[in-house]
Amino acid sequence: MSSTAGKVIKCRAAVAWEPEKPLSIETIEVAPPGKGEVRLKILFNSLCRTDVYWWDVKCGECKYCKSEESNLCELLRINSDRGVMLSDGKTRFSKNGQPIYHFLGTSTFSEYTVLHAGCVAKINPAAPLDKVCVVSCGFCTGFGATVNVAKPKPNDTVAVFGLGAVGLSACEGARVSGASRIIGVDLLSSRFEQAKKFGVTDFVNPKEHNKPVQQVIAEMTGGGVDRAVECTGSIQASISAFECTHDGWGVAVLVSVPHKDAEFKTHPMKFMEGRTLKGTFYGHFKPRTDIPGVVEKYLNKELELEKLITHSVPFSEINTAFDLMLKGEGIRCLIRMEE
Amino acid sequence: MSSTAGKVIKCRAAVAWEPEKPLSIETIEVAPPGKGEVRLKILFNSLCRTDVYWWDVKCGECKYCKSEESNLCELLRINSDRGVMLSDGKTRFSKNGQPIYHFLGTSTFSEYTVLHAGCVAKINPAAPLDKVCVVSCGFCTGFGATVNVAKPKPNDTVAVFGLGAVGLSACEGARVSGASRIIGVDLLSSRFEQAKKFGVTDFVNPKEHNKPVQQVIAEMTGGGVDRAVECTGSIQASISAFECTHDGWGVAVLVSVPHKDAEFKTHPMKFMEGRTLKGTFYGHFKPRTDIPGVVEKYLNKELELEKLITHSVPFSEINTAFDLMLKGEGIRCLIRMEE
Repeated sequence: MSSTAGKVIKCRAAVAWEPEKPLSIETIEVAPPGKGEVRLKILFNSLCRTDVYWWDVKCGECKYCKSEESNLCELLRINSDRGVMLSDGKTRFSKNGQPIYHFLGTSTFSEYTVLHAGCVAKINPAAPLDKVCVVSCGFCTGFGATVNVAKPKPNDTVAVFGLGAVGLSACEGARVSGASRIIGVDLLSSRFEQAKKFGVTDFVNPKEHNKPVQQVIAEMTGGGVDRAVECTGSIQASISAFECTHDGWGVAVLVSVPHKDAEFKTHPMKFMEGRTLKGTFYGHFKPRTDIPGVVEKYLNKELELEKLITHSVPFSEINTAFDLMLKGEGIRCLIRMEE
Repeated sequence: MSSTAGKVIKCRAAVAWEPEKPLSIETIEVAPPGKGEVRLKILFNSLCRTDVYWWDVKCGECKYCKSEESNLCELLRINSDRGVMLSDGKTRFSKNGQPIYHFLGTSTFSEYTVLHAGCVAKINPAAPLDKVCVVSCGFCTGFGATVNVAKPKPNDTVAVFGLGAVGLSACEGARVSGASRIIGVDLLSSRFEQAKKFGVTDFVNPKEHNKPVQQVIAEMTGGGVDRAVECTGSIQASISAFECTHDGWGVAVLVSVPHKDAEFKTHPMKFMEGRTLKGTFYGHFKPRTDIPGVVEKYLNKELELEKLITHSVPFSEINTAFDLMLKGEGIRCLIRMEE
């Protein structure tokens, strides 16, 4: 039993007192965990553009958790932006008695945090935490969209729309699946060079063509790609990703959250001709049970994570990580909690 | 070797001299088969609303035929409404020297016909031809859409939109898959009674509800059906079929050919939430290799075909079969070539 069991821990945390203002490093109090909760020490961290607030609690009991086909959990929808713990509706963080709310169910920008036990995955202790911390959430979102949902076979052709962290992770999924060609699609041609490390063999910038990108890809591939993964959130890219797949067997997967008013439009004959359209959150991984397996794949050198980490800052410079992301520089910035 | 080998056969055929005019029973000449062709005697026949002109020649050599995932054949698209044979571009039918053209690659409204060998499936000789003749094309289209594409698991809930021959065959697929509930959707409430024979447990007539049918079905099923099959060709029904599936794992399959200007529209979040949309021609069956297996299933009493045959006429009354279909009476009308 740890000497801190049942006691309040004082530690540093990056606190958002106001939206859109820089985080402030504060000394806070972290209460002991309640029933069904764990208190964890955070060592490494990484910033994600879309902090996934969908996979908060994996209760294991609802019809989604029991289904082999879904990783959605019924509890999460009610509770994703809750800011308090389920058992008593209170926060475990405070500063001088003033409550500080939890962030997206994880609150990892703190040296210690309290989580629902269902949010915690136990991984191989041999895993280097400064590498595997990037597994969640962008990596699994893109990688899983390819390997769990699009499921390319060896020698398949794969198009990935959007070459940010999620898209590059989707490319990594295509690479480890043995794709013969990985076509990266992005409006920034400068991203091609970096994308090659993730297996991208061909690059298409839609701005450099005077015909629809789906037509460009169909012509490049003799009729279309076997699989496509959409990681931009643009509705036009979603339609292109679907329509650039080969008839007869093409599968497209939508990964990025679209605008709330977006409308997916296509001719139904595109489906009749044998194309399939799917979507996924978090790459269809069930975090608690599946993350340990992803870590094993990394340890077995079946996939590469280092190349995602382009920057590294100590915790005291966490706002630099936000700046890098807002400027679109690099892929992932590691945050080292112990300086 | 048959005594007719290499000789012209005189026989009766129903000939369409003009579009939309009744067929005329004529005595015609059927030439011997050319290379890669077979001449067949037709015994039983059935009329199908949408004569499937997509599965004409299964060449076995193109990338579609070689793919496990597709039943489309590259040759067929070029040749589907050809009217002549591939080897020499000529017809094998004539009357007093005047050529008569082949119909949709099969020309079965004749006592003898000539087909490309790739269009012929060899089935178990024990099969009663007056029953298994309905296997192609409506039955396989609907049945295959369910068992090959939607793939419900035992106890799944399945919605089928449209309760014509194809839709009822889709219901039969759900029934033999062990679906716990089969919800039939049709604008004609009179079709419910007949549909019960195909396993339909619940009936929804969209006209009898003042909210969208997808909402009605979601409320009936605690969130949506596990699988949906669309057999009406209406674009609105296609959208409803997709949106009435359960998030997390729902799969909808489009079966019926939509209007050429139709546009499938939905919010992309419906995909993100874990729904899948597919389409299929001929239920993803590869006719030549798969029809024998469907016949075996019938012989093993794993599926029922008799209930599809509601009428029967001798060949001389073939136009009655057309009338019944145009009036929407019954499901399938058997045409007996030997009177």
